[in-house]
Amino acid sequence: MGVNFFRRDDRDPKFVLFEMLDLERLLRYEAFKDFTLDDFKMILDEGLKVAREVVGPTLQDGDQQGLVYEEGRVKVPASFHDCWKVLSENGWFSLAVSPEFGGQGLPLTIYGQVAEYFISANSAMTIYSGLAVGAAHLIENFGTGEDRALFCGKMCNGVWGGTMCLTEPDAGSDVGYLKTKAVPDPEAGDPRVYKIEGTKRFISSGEQDLTENIIHLVLARIEGAPQGTKGISLFIVPKIRVNPDGTLGEPNDVFCTNIEHKMGLHGSATCGLNFGENGRCQGILLGEPQTGMAQMFQMMNEARIGTGLLAQGVASAAYDAARIYAQERVQGPLFANRSGPRVRIVEHEDIRRMLLTLKAGTEAMRAFILKLFYLTDVSRFDPDEAVRREAGQTVDLLTPLVKAYCSDFAYLLCREAIQIMGGVGYCREFPVEQYARDVKSASIYEGTTYIQALDLVGRKLMMAGGTVFQRWLGQVIEFARANQEDPDFARDFALLLKAGEVLGDYAGRFLSYFQEGRLGLIPLSAVRFLECMAETVLAREMLEQGLMAREKLKNVDSQSASGFFYRGKIETARFFCRQILTNVFSRQAALHQEDTSALDMPEAAF
Amino acid sequence: MGVNFFRRDDRDPKFVLFEMLDLERLLRYEAFKDFTLDDFKMILDEGLKVAREVVGPTLQDGDQQGLVYEEGRVKVPASFHDCWKVLSENGWFSLAVSPEFGGQGLPLTIYGQVAEYFISANSAMTIYSGLAVGAAHLIENFGTGEDRALFCGKMCNGVWGGTMCLTEPDAGSDVGYLKTKAVPDPEAGDPRVYKIEGTKRFISSGEQDLTENIIHLVLARIEGAPQGTKGISLFIVPKIRVNPDGTLGEPNDVFCTNIEHKMGLHGSATCGLNFGENGRCQGILLGEPQTGMAQMFQMMNEARIGTGLLAQGVASAAYDAARIYAQERVQGPLFANRSGPRVRIVEHEDIRRMLLTLKAGTEAMRAFILKLFYLTDVSRFDPDEAVRREAGQTVDLLTPLVKAYCSDFAYLLCREAIQIMGGVGYCREFPVEQYARDVKSASIYEGTTYIQALDLVGRKLMMAGGTVFQRWLGQVIEFARANQEDPDFARDFALLLKAGEVLGDYAGRFLSYFQEGRLGLIPLSAVRFLECMAETVLAREMLEQGLMAREKLKNVDSQSASGFFYRGKIETARFFCRQILTNVFSRQAALHQEDTSALDMPEAAF
Repeated sequence: MGVNFFRRDDRDPKFVLFEMLDLERLLRYEAFKDFTLDDFKMILDEGLKVAREVVGPTLQDGDQQGLVYEEGRVKVPASFHDCWKVLSENGWFSLAVSPEFGGQGLPLTIYGQVAEYFISANSAMTIYSGLAVGAAHLIENFGTGEDRALFCGKMCNGVWGGTMCLTEPDAGSDVGYLKTKAVPDPEAGDPRVYKIEGTKRFISSGEQDLTENIIHLVLARIEGAPQGTKGISLFIVPKIRVNPDGTLGEPNDVFCTNIEHKMGLHGSATCGLNFGENGRCQGILLGEPQTGMAQMFQMMNEARIGTGLLAQGVASAAYDAARIYAQERVQGPLFANRSGPRVRIVEHEDIRRMLLTLKAGTEAMRAFILKLFYLTDVSRFDPDEAVRREAGQTVDLLTPLVKAYCSDFAYLLCREAIQIMGGVGYCREFPVEQYARDVKSASIYEGTTYIQALDLVGRKLMMAGGTVFQRWLGQVIEFARANQEDPDFARDFALLLKAGEVLGDYAGRFLSYFQEGRLGLIPLSAVRFLECMAETVLAREMLEQGLMAREKLKNVDSQSASGFFYRGKIETARFFCRQILTNVFSRQAALHQEDTSALDMPEAAF
Repeated sequence: MGVNFFRRDDRDPKFVLFEMLDLERLLRYEAFKDFTLDDFKMILDEGLKVAREVVGPTLQDGDQQGLVYEEGRVKVPASFHDCWKVLSENGWFSLAVSPEFGGQGLPLTIYGQVAEYFISANSAMTIYSGLAVGAAHLIENFGTGEDRALFCGKMCNGVWGGTMCLTEPDAGSDVGYLKTKAVPDPEAGDPRVYKIEGTKRFISSGEQDLTENIIHLVLARIEGAPQGTKGISLFIVPKIRVNPDGTLGEPNDVFCTNIEHKMGLHGSATCGLNFGENGRCQGILLGEPQTGMAQMFQMMNEARIGTGLLAQGVASAAYDAARIYAQERVQGPLFANRSGPRVRIVEHEDIRRMLLTLKAGTEAMRAFILKLFYLTDVSRFDPDEAVRREAGQTVDLLTPLVKAYCSDFAYLLCREAIQIMGGVGYCREFPVEQYARDVKSASIYEGTTYIQALDLVGRKLMMAGGTVFQRWLGQVIEFARANQEDPDFARDFALLLKAGEVLGDYAGRFLSYFQEGRLGLIPLSAVRFLECMAETVLAREMLEQGLMAREKLKNVDSQSASGFFYRGKIETARFFCRQILTNVFSRQAALHQEDTSALDMPEAAF
């Protein structure tokens, strides 16, 4: 086993969960009425312990031993097997899964924080279970009673794996062009059974030896269905056929042709899969024909929040590593005291700037993601339909931001962690270079950053006639205005207000570009708009935390552990607004140029 | 051998060298009077061919086979040996070395471009030769006639390697605290010979099997010398002792204890070295005692420009890979024509934005770096002392920028290249993920980004009473003002003017922080100031190119290859100003906050 680098402190997660979010409200819901706050705390404490003791030791094995591909089979490192056994047998994969399928039925909010711990300990490991549970959730929502009974329990409890099979060699971002086909299989004696034939690529967890079976959810076109995304259906395609009594039958003609050799996530199998090479691959139609994309979008939306969580969890681990190193390593005197003694680098001005970038960035992302999980719980279980709908709309609006911005930001934060550590940060003896390699993938899979930006600009801004975005923006502006005289954060609320105005400026310009037929300007600015909006979301979270911390500080000794935490939170909120939120102004300056040079470039000049 | 990914087009390098820079001026210098422009062109063409045919095939071997360490020895991949032989035997290492040492005596400007080709082909490979030549240059400048005769020729021609040994386990950025010591060795019968004892770390090319000997330049403190940087001397420490007739003597008690396992640059040996474990390590004092740091700074300044060049060369290779892929890969319709056909991704708006970021970034860095090499040639060889001095001052002023900014920018550009290519960009079948890993090192070695920023703010701004910076800034502002009515670039010159004002704002604030004793604010903003200044330098280069391209376009068919090139250059100049130079405004907004949160943070809150 490799070195265990997991060193998480849970003060900030507990602050978000128990001091910021109203968990009592969740406890009043029928679904969660049997839990108490103490139950949540116990599970979080135990999750942290398991992350440290069980998952953490597998990190380097995943990266350095990696996977072995041999004749269609993929072997994961031995330590992954041990870890998988402990996690599955103790129900850690199914925290938020319905008790109907053997889960514990906890709020996603609690699951999300435990998942962050596991991701920080070894992100590659969590992809296997995350996809299995996500795929099961789709079967739960769209399958028949028989499908649910047959698949969901085992997929949620680590007995079987799961995947989502969208990408093909010739259809990536452009999934509507997929060529995998499905034809009715009359011999099966069940009209829902089709023969599947096609090639998929970049399938995470597509093959592994952790589970006895893998349930692939495969997008394919039923013969004769229209071209494009609207003709696509979704199929349950087990690696090994499942008998009606749940026992395993014969192999289902699914072959893993290769695994990708990637920059990072070496422990996560990214597979090429051939379905039906020998004409013997059966798939069970999930839900109605030609609704595959809509169904898959449900899983994709969950997976997109999960990707943001992965990015944040990895960046948080990078912060841990850099923070601990900076508190030990001694180099040179301070700039402000050149003739003074050598000090630990945590005292150096520029190191503090970088550390605080990591702290502010990871804490803001944590607050944002847990808020999204919380709103998802509300959207599912609140008794008031209007409340459910509003919460669901907010989640929909912000999902592209969490996927895209957190991914890109986490890569930059890992770079800062390397930079703080200097030469050793670039070497394998510390984990931060691995974190940087692992996390880069997050901006690509589940839809690239640009795909998210198009979703935001092309769909989410217009949701419900634009009212969802307007409501959200109105809340931001109202929050900023209400606090503009704040004695501690006046500057910061002024920046938040300006950022809100920048977003309004963008949205107004997008509308006029659309009306004027200057369509090219929209995609050129879409990613930048997404970034501005994400930074505004994060700044708002941090300012809410800052105000709360100031209140809490009144009741504790400022030199106590809690005192330091709250004082640090106040500085962190300021830093986020003054050093990170200010990024919106450059993007606005660029926006105002209405620059079309990228479109005007003759292709031959690239 | 691995796949050869080298696909460089030399149109832009030739534009910079033969259309922008005044090479005729160099030809009038005594040192270069025997050359012609055609000689330069021939060498550049041949260099490009050698990069493609000889260096390119070694890239993947360096990364994937890597190095083997065994009992103090380091083996490089077999293909590196073949490549080294061709390069050394054909004089490619010594293009700019004086003919006295077997070099070709070419301007650094020409050498710089050839070096960029080699770096793009395999950056790890170039580190071995670059350090050898750099170390030889130090011996040339500070050694005795005997030293020069004994070492320089072989080091410049690939017979012997070379290193610079600064870092120790406990002294990195903080080199003044090094512990390696030197004591006179009376037995040697030469007062310049000392016994060396100490441990160095992170020594590039510290051990390898490409050359029969390695000449280490080692910083050490002569027993009794003062603490800190002023007590440090520099020693020539051969791995194998060299007899007065140039033949090899006995081993010199230098032992390679390990190699680092790094994120990238796997083909470049980064070594731990023990000097004098057995009390038998001899070093020859180079120059005067206690002038070691000053001497080493000369080599470091060259190495810092070289590091910027490495970053630019790697990023340019990433641009090549992304550009070629984007011109082949077909995915989806345009945003502006959603019901249109699928097109190659080079036509997609956001891909064009990212590609143009790579094009603008790499071309601006190339222009900047070749300008610095050109000014270095002027500073060495111009007959007019005032001209030499001014050119040298400009090089000194801008060296921290080229090292720090190009390194950080190149890492971001490699990220864009990965993003353009999507899933395959994250995989080893294409080289861009390797480029991202390789280039990250550049922001750490030869002084981290922060060390460069301190050099800029703490020393360079004040050079010659601040006149060098003022002169440079005055030129930028004058250039912007003179062109503010330009029909094609008015917006861009307006942005340049504003950027110049931002720099003046920074410098003024730094001065007042200094005067008011608010010293902490300076290091907190130093890196950001450096970035603003670098973007201003690069924008100026691009605008000069844009103006020139517009002139040239008048005389060519706009549909010809040259026509496309010049039109593309005009768009690239605009893009740089409107999309990259605009970054200065966020930093200025942050500056105006005078944010001290990073200093006010209680350490316990990190």
